[in-house]
Amino acid sequence: MPKSRAPEPVRLVLDTSVFTNPETGSQFGGNTAEAVGTFVELARLAASKLRCAMPPSIFDELKTFLAADEVPSDFEYVIALKAPNRYNVLVPGFLLYELIDDIRMRIDRGLRVAEKAVRATGPKNVDATITRLRGEYREALRAGLLDSREDVDLILLARELDAALVSSDRAVVTWAERLGIRLIDPDQLRRLFDGLLEDEDAPRARRDQSTT
Amino acid sequence: MPKSRAPEPVRLVLDTSVFTNPETGSQFGGNTAEAVGTFVELARLAASKLRCAMPPSIFDELKTFLAADEVPSDFEYVIALKAPNRYNVLVPGFLLYELIDDIRMRIDRGLRVAEKAVRATGPKNVDATITRLRGEYREALRAGLLDSREDVDLILLARELDAALVSSDRAVVTWAERLGIRLIDPDQLRRLFDGLLEDEDAPRARRDQSTT
Repeated sequence: MPKSRAPEPVRLVLDTSVFTNPETGSQFGGNTAEAVGTFVELARLAASKLRCAMPPSIFDELKTFLAADEVPSDFEYVIALKAPNRYNVLVPGFLLYELIDDIRMRIDRGLRVAEKAVRATGPKNVDATITRLRGEYREALRAGLLDSREDVDLILLARELDAALVSSDRAVVTWAERLGIRLIDPDQLRRLFDGLLEDEDAPRARRDQSTT
Repeated sequence: MPKSRAPEPVRLVLDTSVFTNPETGSQFGGNTAEAVGTFVELARLAASKLRCAMPPSIFDELKTFLAADEVPSDFEYVIALKAPNRYNVLVPGFLLYELIDDIRMRIDRGLRVAEKAVRATGPKNVDATITRLRGEYREALRAGLLDSREDVDLILLARELDAALVSSDRAVVTWAERLGIRLIDPDQLRRLFDGLLEDEDAPRARRDQSTT
């Protein structure tokens, strides 16, 4: 009788935020370098169950948080650096409508912020008004908007690889949901790894337990 | 021997601008109602060579230029009203990058317009500054941007039907080009119809000419 085959490993696409978001990163270490180090170690041990990938644009972003010697030597062995095939990955047309509705709403909001700033301008507060304008305008137009090539890389790569996306970026998660992409909560990642590695260490004990 | 079959008719997807753009519309009539009337007449005669379609969202737009009795009774017989299948039509992922780059550039431009307005504000020109701000902001953020559901309908419908898009909207044409959609110059439409209908009237004479 043929032995039952091990299930295919689950693929993960990792966002920078897994390591740089303080709360999420703290599962793996006290700072970004430690978090990356521990993560790569765990991911290497769990490679038969989880396979990690990251777009090069995200890796570039991550490297700005690390000194050159803080990138683990086996990083690229454990975490595949791969961009999505931007010309071949297809997305349904309705995404364009969602993106455009989102943008129009933000454009209107930006104008209201600008008008408010003009009305608030007095002879002595021009610089203060401009500083406040910048903050509010950015908040109105950018917060939650899918607005960077890195964001799109994450979503298209997860779609191409049929992978689970791991990100704590609100816009990325929203858009991944719209496309029906599998998500894994970044804050549960350490527990997931620990559980899987425990299974690996004591597969028989577990199985015995479940049959009593 | 089997007779050679007539070629498939070329499909056209029509934008409102074909009728409402003064220059384009004037090929067919002195005002929008006349232009629509003449167009529908010609399109009905040329139906074996050209098949017209229009998204309902565009028809709604067009109707705002017409009285109810100015819509030709056979409009919907000659021009198929059909929305794209927004969930099934797929677009390549690289379009998302183009759209997002475009938006980011415009967002930055909008902030510069707003900052300029704040600096130009004096105690006596608040209302004038806001009026100018609105115009410049709209120009910076909206001109040339693919920014309406109607625009996306046109592009996706042309893609779905493998049709030629007829529009004089700059943003629509740019995006159609990016997707490799066939275009027909709206300003050449009358000549095209007249030529095709002439062929129809005197097919033999033409064919004789070409063999002498």
